[in-house]
Amino acid sequence: MFNAILKHIVEGTGGGIGAVLMGYDGIAVEQYFEPCEGVDLPLMAVEYANILKEIKKTAEILNTGFMEEVSIRTERFHVVIRTLSEEYFVAMTLRHDGNFGKARYLLMKEAPTLREALA
Amino acid sequence: MFNAILKHIVEGTGGGIGAVLMGYDGIAVEQYFEPCEGVDLPLMAVEYANILKEIKKTAEILNTGFMEEVSIRTERFHVVIRTLSEEYFVAMTLRHDGNFGKARYLLMKEAPTLREALA
Repeated sequence: MFNAILKHIVEGTGGGIGAVLMGYDGIAVEQYFEPCEGVDLPLMAVEYANILKEIKKTAEILNTGFMEEVSIRTERFHVVIRTLSEEYFVAMTLRHDGNFGKARYLLMKEAPTLREALA
Repeated sequence: MFNAILKHIVEGTGGGIGAVLMGYDGIAVEQYFEPCEGVDLPLMAVEYANILKEIKKTAEILNTGFMEEVSIRTERFHVVIRTLSEEYFVAMTLRHDGNFGKARYLLMKEAPTLREALA
């Protein structure tokens, strides 16, 4: 179930290489990764979970409302993260030249289904 | 000079409320903020500088290449950050319903000018 949705998101996005459904504690509920040389995608997800926890805390302190979406673009990759609940988020990694807009759209579209399935 | 560019970016983006040119140490070189109730925009920039430092470090550890752009969307705001150099970045805050695409575009367009002026 989760795996099928993650696969759909990755395959539906030009340049998509992986997606993970994860808790803020860095433990993955499910993941789908295509082979990608020179980078440890599961480790990347864990590292980003830590950053996300920081951003969540900061948003609460600053009273800017709950965190909805974070995107990080580096020289090689683009990571798009969508929060699902107080405990879970979904993160997708695409190649630097991947379709960022499509990734955002598919994450937004599939978020309610993932949220329901988690409840 | 810096102020004029920041003002141009904020005024050119629908829903733009502030922009800051800042070092990773959280010290602003220049800032331009429109009045916005219920949130301390300069404090927000300092907090985000800390997060950015974490993301930069993580990108280096993971070997994903240098950090180019970060965006954070919360219930009330959208913050778009573009790195300029090893020391500086420019961050722009817009309202939740602001024009995110235009903000990204203007930051990308003005980045070389800001970079040159900083050198």
